[in-house]
Amino acid sequence: MRHFTVELEELNSKLLEMAGMVEASISRAVRSLVDQNKELAEQVIRDEPRINRTEIEIDGMATRLLALRQPVARDLRFLTAALKINTDLERIGDLAQHIAERSLSLMHHPLVKPMVDIPTMASLVQSMLLKVLDAFVKGDEGLARSVLLADDEVDNLRDSVYASLLDTMQKDPSVVPAAVDLIFVARNLERIGDHATNIAEDVVFLIKGIDVRHNAERAETKVT
Amino acid sequence: MRHFTVELEELNSKLLEMAGMVEASISRAVRSLVDQNKELAEQVIRDEPRINRTEIEIDGMATRLLALRQPVARDLRFLTAALKINTDLERIGDLAQHIAERSLSLMHHPLVKPMVDIPTMASLVQSMLLKVLDAFVKGDEGLARSVLLADDEVDNLRDSVYASLLDTMQKDPSVVPAAVDLIFVARNLERIGDHATNIAEDVVFLIKGIDVRHNAERAETKVT
Repeated sequence: MRHFTVELEELNSKLLEMAGMVEASISRAVRSLVDQNKELAEQVIRDEPRINRTEIEIDGMATRLLALRQPVARDLRFLTAALKINTDLERIGDLAQHIAERSLSLMHHPLVKPMVDIPTMASLVQSMLLKVLDAFVKGDEGLARSVLLADDEVDNLRDSVYASLLDTMQKDPSVVPAAVDLIFVARNLERIGDHATNIAEDVVFLIKGIDVRHNAERAETKVT
Repeated sequence: MRHFTVELEELNSKLLEMAGMVEASISRAVRSLVDQNKELAEQVIRDEPRINRTEIEIDGMATRLLALRQPVARDLRFLTAALKINTDLERIGDLAQHIAERSLSLMHHPLVKPMVDIPTMASLVQSMLLKVLDAFVKGDEGLARSVLLADDEVDNLRDSVYASLLDTMQKDPSVVPAAVDLIFVARNLERIGDHATNIAEDVVFLIKGIDVRHNAERAETKVT
């Protein structure tokens, strides 16, 4: 039987590989949208099955280690965090695919003038994901917590995008289909931000053994 | 130390309690929307923190049992399924809250004539959730699989809702804000259907030890 540490390291690498694929998909989906690049969107859609297969692979690795190694304390937290982070990454991959699909759909509609704050929202959300993965790799609690704080900014940007698109639609009904696509893009970006926040909570839990979801920390829930 | 079976039974009950709360919230959110009932929507929003607390409690119970009892085979599958089902139920609770918020927002806008297929979509999605929980309780694989099949019907209804609302907005820009609210309601219902599907996949995995996500079954992935 191989050393447990080696197996945990392999799971860690696989999770980072998954994260890398998901990051690449978001980046391509957003560039496809901004540059009206069909090929990038199609690549995102082509890459999705591989992300799904990797999710199943990671789940299998983590579940097997839970069963065979009966880990405790930090190793147990790592394995349960890996299961949760894996799910969040796969859903981010789905959302990148949705953005790519909207991007393709937008190429068939008359263009809405204001992309408004969508590119800003996209960079913010991408930087949240990069930061939280960095926090995971380095075990940096402060960095993970900084991602929790960025979520409000994402919500503010989303509100401004919605307001501006609603206004545009009411003034010019011909842009309704394109504007609805952009509303969904903003919503998908917001949800990527939510998943990055979930991952940040898992990273804090992993490092400190403290559950920070839903302000649970105030009740000082501790898991060891 | 209490008997492991008793502890698993407690976790099972807690999960069903969580499911009951979530079901009640969806049902209230949908009725609030259809009947323009402000009070029901407010109750959904008030109940959300309790659902969140229960999620954390269930996660704690399942993680503790994984650590202390080092379960194997079906008990291990039950505990990992419980963790996943718990996450899906909590997200369904969030989606019920989003519908309740849209329902409140809709009370301030001029009404869109066609609620179109939204009530039909809502009943379908609610019946998927009821069925999958029934499948979980009874260990009924066939029932769980029937939920997987219903997902296409949800997607068809969503397409018809979107097409009809886009058309309405283009003909009468004054209904744009209300129609956008309804588009989000349809999207939230669709996502509740997705989560019910996730739970159905977990139930099949629990019963058979077969992973049916992303057509993984075709590759005959088996987890024991």
